[in-house]
Amino acid sequence: MTPEPEGYKKVSEENPKHIQANPYGPNPSDYLSNVSNFQLIESTLREGEQFANSFFTTEKKLEIAKALDDFGVDYIELTSPVASEQSRADCEAICKLGLKAKILTHIRCHMDDAKVAVETGVDGVDVVIGTSQFLRQYSHGKDMSYITNQAIEVIEFVKSKGIEIRFSSEDSFRSDLVDLLNIYRTVDKIGVNRVGIADTVGCANPRQVYELVRTLKTVVHCDIECHFHNDTGCSIANAYTALEGGARLIDVSVLGIGERNGITPLGGLMARMIAADREYVLSKYKLHKLRDLETLVADAVQVNIPFNNPITGFCAFTHKAGIHAKAILANPSTYEILKPSDFGLTRYIHFANRLTGWNAIKSRVDQLNLHLTDTQCKEVTAKIKRLGDIRPLNIDDVDSIIKDFHADVTTPALRPAEGGDVEEAHLDAIKKRKL
Amino acid sequence: MTPEPEGYKKVSEENPKHIQANPYGPNPSDYLSNVSNFQLIESTLREGEQFANSFFTTEKKLEIAKALDDFGVDYIELTSPVASEQSRADCEAICKLGLKAKILTHIRCHMDDAKVAVETGVDGVDVVIGTSQFLRQYSHGKDMSYITNQAIEVIEFVKSKGIEIRFSSEDSFRSDLVDLLNIYRTVDKIGVNRVGIADTVGCANPRQVYELVRTLKTVVHCDIECHFHNDTGCSIANAYTALEGGARLIDVSVLGIGERNGITPLGGLMARMIAADREYVLSKYKLHKLRDLETLVADAVQVNIPFNNPITGFCAFTHKAGIHAKAILANPSTYEILKPSDFGLTRYIHFANRLTGWNAIKSRVDQLNLHLTDTQCKEVTAKIKRLGDIRPLNIDDVDSIIKDFHADVTTPALRPAEGGDVEEAHLDAIKKRKL
Repeated sequence: MTPEPEGYKKVSEENPKHIQANPYGPNPSDYLSNVSNFQLIESTLREGEQFANSFFTTEKKLEIAKALDDFGVDYIELTSPVASEQSRADCEAICKLGLKAKILTHIRCHMDDAKVAVETGVDGVDVVIGTSQFLRQYSHGKDMSYITNQAIEVIEFVKSKGIEIRFSSEDSFRSDLVDLLNIYRTVDKIGVNRVGIADTVGCANPRQVYELVRTLKTVVHCDIECHFHNDTGCSIANAYTALEGGARLIDVSVLGIGERNGITPLGGLMARMIAADREYVLSKYKLHKLRDLETLVADAVQVNIPFNNPITGFCAFTHKAGIHAKAILANPSTYEILKPSDFGLTRYIHFANRLTGWNAIKSRVDQLNLHLTDTQCKEVTAKIKRLGDIRPLNIDDVDSIIKDFHADVTTPALRPAEGGDVEEAHLDAIKKRKL
Repeated sequence: MTPEPEGYKKVSEENPKHIQANPYGPNPSDYLSNVSNFQLIESTLREGEQFANSFFTTEKKLEIAKALDDFGVDYIELTSPVASEQSRADCEAICKLGLKAKILTHIRCHMDDAKVAVETGVDGVDVVIGTSQFLRQYSHGKDMSYITNQAIEVIEFVKSKGIEIRFSSEDSFRSDLVDLLNIYRTVDKIGVNRVGIADTVGCANPRQVYELVRTLKTVVHCDIECHFHNDTGCSIANAYTALEGGARLIDVSVLGIGERNGITPLGGLMARMIAADREYVLSKYKLHKLRDLETLVADAVQVNIPFNNPITGFCAFTHKAGIHAKAILANPSTYEILKPSDFGLTRYIHFANRLTGWNAIKSRVDQLNLHLTDTQCKEVTAKIKRLGDIRPLNIDDVDSIIKDFHADVTTPALRPAEGGDVEEAHLDAIKKRKL
């Protein structure tokens, strides 16, 4: 079902039996995989509100909710209406927008909270309780039977209101496995819509995630949702591996904003998933809106888009080394797994530097509509590299060198006796400019 | 061997049989794992030089090399001396520094390049050749037997000079597995020091990495080095999973700078590895120098440290939600897998906002050396939350509210008939301040 990304066909024709259509697509041995059937729970307005710099006004929340809905997220999760009067009013206001996305709110596993939540107009309630020894000892101080009884009461109450209910443990990867499986089986039997696994402290690694999800999959019939913090940099990989193991829903936020350094970022996960199943991702999500969505949230919380952000970071589609530039010009798939055009972006070949290869320069010569032989292109490239050792060259510099060279070789009468003089003169001219 | 992180002991005493010493440490079933025995090949001065914004002067390269050596990296990899005259001179200059780290340079699998490289004074040479269908067709156009013969010639030449040699494929995850294993076995028999796997386009996912490394481990006897690009956000997780599978060396750069959005970042990998084996990481690397090292490189390439950078991002150790703040104050391990003090950093509890819990406020009351009962702390917290709905509160605001409240409750004679008046007056005062 997955279409071959551009560039694959050529190779397949050459050697069709040895090329898998998409070698980094869903692993066929993962028969429970939801890599091609996942959903997003977008939590910028819940987890993201816990980010140090977040202070969303009501207007900003409505704007973000609409933008998320337009992007195509499946669920929008909001801060508990119990957190403050304003949180409650904002939750009600977003429910009244009539978005396509389902609206959830995230509450503690308490009847007090549940009673407020079900009156806000949400489509579902996400309850969470800490099951790890750490949280049981230092946070709420409850034992497992107390937790279980409280969960049953809350779940049955929310279900009686005819809305969705998710039960999640907190700090799942430091919880006792038997405790976890017991409570998940119990809530599954009561009929929750999904159970959640949460790497609250960002400690989990991908193979642990896969094993826990696969194990849980044998215990419950409902969907599995996963929430990964990014303290140790694995939140995107953990999300992907969870889907491979059979989880269905991933919690994300725009730019990953959340407690500490945040959770799985929406954009980064889109990069991961489109590499695996481009057709599914493009059918569900408006990727060309990603940049605007990230800018909206970055401005609201007063941060910059990280320079190395997947997809939208300023260098995500920039190629510098000569050897890369050559191949990219021949076929973008050689060094690009993502197509910038899928995201409404363009590729940039960086050729004004000492690592430049002559292929990149030849491409620029063609763009300038000049005519040089390959030998001439190599000659001008050598000049550019020598100059690139002395100072950073910008595009204007390179264009200027190419044009001078072209004028030089196409009007031999003007050429000085020694070719070096032209270069020297140009070098002098460049040195004289302000660095 | 791994010491229990702080906070574990208490729990172990309570329930010793049910708690694994470090549940997110090395998986005991990975008998080939090098999670507790890894080395770093630091490539800021090679891969990092391919970053769009990099233009290192000789002085800056020397400064970075010294800082990397001081941090404790095992190898420093430099741009090919063939790239330009300056690259060659810089390579020679860094070799003459007499650093503890071994110096490598990274070249194409060509005798021309190898002859130059071995004369620079490096401790080893990293050769790379594209083995994928893409690179064979669009980059160098060579077939596998040509590649193999060229590799043998270069490897034997470099070995004859008595320095280390690594052979790496490029774009390994889109290469034919049999081709890969054939060439790796061949170069292993000739006696390379290590073979390299490279996810050149950033397409690999963790379970693929684990499988390829495990497979390769059955074919070669030498060490395995891995190089992961971050286009789909998995470079840290892939590195960790590679070590689990038996790889020994990971290529990193400061802040991950490199082609496009870069490779496995040094700092992010340190976060991942210290969670797995704190003792090993602390014994080898000076983590408290990480912030300065990142700042040095960020300044050199004119980027900001991303707000969400692991460890050094401005919010990495900031806690906001009330429920989290309460537990963090009781025991940092509840919501922190990393100890900020390991990196010379401090924790910050964010309490001046509407999500504030009364425990965070109580902690602040104690810090201010005031004396309020729990009930009084809850009362003042409720006031702070109401004000937090109206505008962002800074620490001064919160301190002021607490101090007013404290003065109020400790001098009952001054208390107005209705407590609400104090709050109203304070609210008015805050509203009058510039937002």
